[in-house]
Amino acid sequence: MAAGRRLGEFEFIAKMLRPLATGFPGAFELGDDTARIALPSGEDLVLKTDALVCGVHFLPAHAPDLVAKKALRVNLSDLAAAGARPLAYQLALVLPDDIDDPWLEAFCAGLAADQARFGIALCGGDTTSTPGALTISVTALGTAPAGTALGRGGARPGDLVFVSGTIGDGTLGLLANAGHLPDLPPSALAFLDDRYLLPQPRLALGQGLRGVASACMDISDGLVGDLGHIVERSHVRAVIDAEKVPLSAAAQAALARQPALLERILTGGDDYELLFTVSPQRRVALAGLARAAGVPVTEIGRVEQGQGVVVVRQGQSLTFARSGYQHR
Amino acid sequence: MAAGRRLGEFEFIAKMLRPLATGFPGAFELGDDTARIALPSGEDLVLKTDALVCGVHFLPAHAPDLVAKKALRVNLSDLAAAGARPLAYQLALVLPDDIDDPWLEAFCAGLAADQARFGIALCGGDTTSTPGALTISVTALGTAPAGTALGRGGARPGDLVFVSGTIGDGTLGLLANAGHLPDLPPSALAFLDDRYLLPQPRLALGQGLRGVASACMDISDGLVGDLGHIVERSHVRAVIDAEKVPLSAAAQAALARQPALLERILTGGDDYELLFTVSPQRRVALAGLARAAGVPVTEIGRVEQGQGVVVVRQGQSLTFARSGYQHR
Repeated sequence: MAAGRRLGEFEFIAKMLRPLATGFPGAFELGDDTARIALPSGEDLVLKTDALVCGVHFLPAHAPDLVAKKALRVNLSDLAAAGARPLAYQLALVLPDDIDDPWLEAFCAGLAADQARFGIALCGGDTTSTPGALTISVTALGTAPAGTALGRGGARPGDLVFVSGTIGDGTLGLLANAGHLPDLPPSALAFLDDRYLLPQPRLALGQGLRGVASACMDISDGLVGDLGHIVERSHVRAVIDAEKVPLSAAAQAALARQPALLERILTGGDDYELLFTVSPQRRVALAGLARAAGVPVTEIGRVEQGQGVVVVRQGQSLTFARSGYQHR
Repeated sequence: MAAGRRLGEFEFIAKMLRPLATGFPGAFELGDDTARIALPSGEDLVLKTDALVCGVHFLPAHAPDLVAKKALRVNLSDLAAAGARPLAYQLALVLPDDIDDPWLEAFCAGLAADQARFGIALCGGDTTSTPGALTISVTALGTAPAGTALGRGGARPGDLVFVSGTIGDGTLGLLANAGHLPDLPPSALAFLDDRYLLPQPRLALGQGLRGVASACMDISDGLVGDLGHIVERSHVRAVIDAEKVPLSAAAQAALARQPALLERILTGGDDYELLFTVSPQRRVALAGLARAAGVPVTEIGRVEQGQGVVVVRQGQSLTFARSGYQHR
């Protein structure tokens, strides 16, 4: 981040942030104290707040437009897991002195691109200075028909466990970034890096899963740890087969070189894929809606009576030193 | 802030934050990805996000429970200005390593006290670490009957300009804290310090002003600057009489010693009083609802055709070097 000229607070809001709110009636072009949203009749509000901190969730060297997109997408991924349709977001932007206008322009361009992609608008927030690290807190707002939003609590014995997409790419991307996967081909490194930097919120799949999945969440803290959240809330246990967990070609290449990476793949964070449970009777419906959403889904295990998460590989249970990632 | 033991992320959430969400159905005891809120039929959602940063909006020496209350109240003050009834909030808590469990316990006790006072609940958010400054971002959610929320845009020529409470105490409290008002009596210093640290969101007054005020906002960046926002959004001008601006006994004492403080009083921030315009026909209704809310309101000027804010004192216009405070 280069230190350079920076607009004052009001000019920054007027020139760079206001265009992001134009067209959303309740945002009043950021000219009021509060935003106001009239929800469609019969819809529940679904919301989530997540903060990204420079040095913890992204690095100073990362492109500002990608940082902006990641800040939106980690929250949109949570809306996807609830089966919600995204509507708008509020942004608290906490800026150290070394953030200059070009950085902010690129950051806002990233927000604009993802607003267009996901059909959302900025509807308010705050911008302030800090003596510390760049911090971006996003509150994403969505809606779902009353009472239909998905949660972690509904998995039942007999249900099957599914994931969308591929698992482990995000955490391997972080390793690749740190130079720990030196012998992978450049194309695999680029793929993993992109998967780490730019989550793909599974919004269409999530909305399709309403009424089909019994429980759903997005994987942000690692497959095993997050499945632990579902079984805890649902008062069940889950048994998954490590060999059924879908891996990208890049993750397969990394695993072939370093078999010990399996633990990292199953417990690392930043997948932003959906993890959900479905009654066997709904397997056909699931296949249809996954096709419609254009996202592969893979059955990786089953729900049983009991508690905890068991990972089986070639008939043996695996135990892990760590079951998830904690942002501390 | 002392450095000491600190719970892990999940334990902190379970032990200290979860109790703050208990009883709010859509918060799921913070055990889900998202919060879900079914709004009462015919109500609009009103929301606001504000971030407080250590070293900018409060100091390391400030008591954690007061910091917690301030983080809530600056947002509740915005809901008050909209005439909204507060409902819940989301919290992004960004913690440096030197924040320990006793600090967090006191912080959460402050949240709990204000939750009880204002009838709100924690409904979700995020906690993460930072290499930088303690940062607290709150998104406050409220409701107002559809289409009735107050904003900055409705002031009309002929309206009268009012403020609640007294003006300038917050900014004088900041000066007092920095040792710049050494000759004030201790009781006056304590009063100003309290007014700086602990805003009193004028929620009952704000809700009473729905249908009575033509425009309303809370004064966070200074009376003159914030009135500038109302006249800009309403395409009018305002003329206020400096001698009508209501001052506390402590502010009067400070002004008597340093007459030059008048500019600071009229343009400093952190008042968190309501600034609003009312048609003369509604003066009686206003007096009644201010009495009912238990908050004094004072007429300080009028709205005219034109643009800008004019401050008159003893028949002469005052001009100021700065018209408001920018958090940069």
